[in-house]
Amino acid sequence: MSAPSRRRIGLGPGAEFDLIRRFLDSDAPLPPEVRVGPGDDAAVLEGGWVITTDLSVEDVHFRRGWLTDHEIGYRAAAGALSDIAAMAAAPVGVLVSLAAPRGGAVDVEAVHAGVRELAATLGTQVIGGDMSRAPGPLVLAIVARGRAAWPVLRDGAEPGDDVWVTGMLGASAAAVRLWEAGDVPPPALRDAFARPRPRIEEARCLVDHELVDALIDISDGLAGDAGHIAAASGMRITLEADAIPVAPTAVAALGGEAAFDAALHGGEDYELCFVTDPGAVDPEYFARRHGLRLTRVGRVSEGEGVWLRARDGSVRRLERGGFDHWGGGAP
Amino acid sequence: MSAPSRRRIGLGPGAEFDLIRRFLDSDAPLPPEVRVGPGDDAAVLEGGWVITTDLSVEDVHFRRGWLTDHEIGYRAAAGALSDIAAMAAAPVGVLVSLAAPRGGAVDVEAVHAGVRELAATLGTQVIGGDMSRAPGPLVLAIVARGRAAWPVLRDGAEPGDDVWVTGMLGASAAAVRLWEAGDVPPPALRDAFARPRPRIEEARCLVDHELVDALIDISDGLAGDAGHIAAASGMRITLEADAIPVAPTAVAALGGEAAFDAALHGGEDYELCFVTDPGAVDPEYFARRHGLRLTRVGRVSEGEGVWLRARDGSVRRLERGGFDHWGGGAP
Repeated sequence: MSAPSRRRIGLGPGAEFDLIRRFLDSDAPLPPEVRVGPGDDAAVLEGGWVITTDLSVEDVHFRRGWLTDHEIGYRAAAGALSDIAAMAAAPVGVLVSLAAPRGGAVDVEAVHAGVRELAATLGTQVIGGDMSRAPGPLVLAIVARGRAAWPVLRDGAEPGDDVWVTGMLGASAAAVRLWEAGDVPPPALRDAFARPRPRIEEARCLVDHELVDALIDISDGLAGDAGHIAAASGMRITLEADAIPVAPTAVAALGGEAAFDAALHGGEDYELCFVTDPGAVDPEYFARRHGLRLTRVGRVSEGEGVWLRARDGSVRRLERGGFDHWGGGAP
Repeated sequence: MSAPSRRRIGLGPGAEFDLIRRFLDSDAPLPPEVRVGPGDDAAVLEGGWVITTDLSVEDVHFRRGWLTDHEIGYRAAAGALSDIAAMAAAPVGVLVSLAAPRGGAVDVEAVHAGVRELAATLGTQVIGGDMSRAPGPLVLAIVARGRAAWPVLRDGAEPGDDVWVTGMLGASAAAVRLWEAGDVPPPALRDAFARPRPRIEEARCLVDHELVDALIDISDGLAGDAGHIAAASGMRITLEADAIPVAPTAVAALGGEAAFDAALHGGEDYELCFVTDPGAVDPEYFARRHGLRLTRVGRVSEGEGVWLRARDGSVRRLERGGFDHWGGGAP
């Protein structure tokens, strides 16, 4: 990977990114303390500091009937801390802004306890926040700070690089699809949604071995997040359908086709997707050290966009878009 | 003032602070990079970095009928940047989390432009954020970072110190009271609510002269915020009713008594309240330099709480509480 320099990150396609592009005052210079401005998983500041904020909105990102209040906090914190993992940083401090529905239906203390539990698990702590009652759904905005010797961005993919993912994909989205269909997900799927574990240690280990050209966490589905790397790097990524590690629990619950779709487009697995020189990664060593599977899922080439090579050898471009994480359910 | 050391800040009375107390894992040690944890206007980190987050919720902190979308963003940013002023820090970067009602009723681009306008006015910039649609009111969580050579906390008040405020108080709350009564506030009152100006430069100037033992911004009303200094410092503050600078525009609109109440309990003036050695401040010099009035409003003594000495010489304790900034109006 290259040393961090002051730069702006190219944004992938999608309505949210169109909006972000318009918000950014692209003519204004970045302040001297800011090494990387909006566009990556987190802003990178002088001294290797990174900072990110992540929203968790009731009936957009979760439903209260699906989760305990404790899990709502835990999961919201996971979204922000996974962005810290995506920079290969160690977390240093979390801030919690919580707008809670009037009437006491939400136990705000339990929500906070969930945030605190995950922060402590990852070696950090809540250092501040704000709170308000609100005439609407529960809204959490979690800020996570972190520090990295070498923050890894999205824009370092090069032709010939391998594309890897950690873990198994699609279980979190499979739980959502079951809930939305009126079913109760089995515990393994429910846990994937309710208690994701940001890959902080794994990301730092990968970068300590100096293998990683580009890194992102999978919060929008593999297709979308590989698309961010492709767009930021000005490259094409081709995914191999056969190689994508779909969670067997998702296959058992949804069938193979729907589980594959959940892995590609479902989002919120909070696994890592990264790009390295060909042959540079030893998945056996990684599995022994972290108890986590590494799978090579594709390759980088000149071009643009994310493409999928099917089992029959045909190749098609994967499009993505969307503003909400899962379009369902809101009034 | 004393050099910053690692410490926790005592919290004033009130339901919000009872909750914050319960959230904080008071047995857990602060991480080594954190100099001051939750309880002050902002967390203080290694190297003089400070960070704060501030919520702005439709129908709790503002109504959409009162403000343009641009002003909603501007005012939300003012809340967070005023906390940076309250640490005598210079702002370095703003993050914007925005949950916008479905249906396009809010121009999110205009909201962002309002944040960017105030950030630029105060010499900083938006460096990141998140955005979601939401099945409820507009919610903004603004994070502001800053840096100070000597962050000024709330806990340095000493017996005999003078208590000062910048500017005139009560105009913002007077605008709210008129709106709530179905009236239209005159432009000067409306502006006080819609376009407050955090006192970044003024706070830094005060601290450059090494005069300030404790500092806070007035976001909960003078009584409440002086109460935070009193609680954090373990001191009593006695305010002189005759001295409190009530905005003449508020008096003209509400009458003297209601305007006085707005100044004491109304909140969101975003002026500064600070404590110094007796006789240490030159209000004439400050007024020449900043075009802003400084008024001595009270004194620190041994004891606790905030007390008000009335014109007839009688003294009573001012209580405060409350969770929302102004209890009114939400469904």
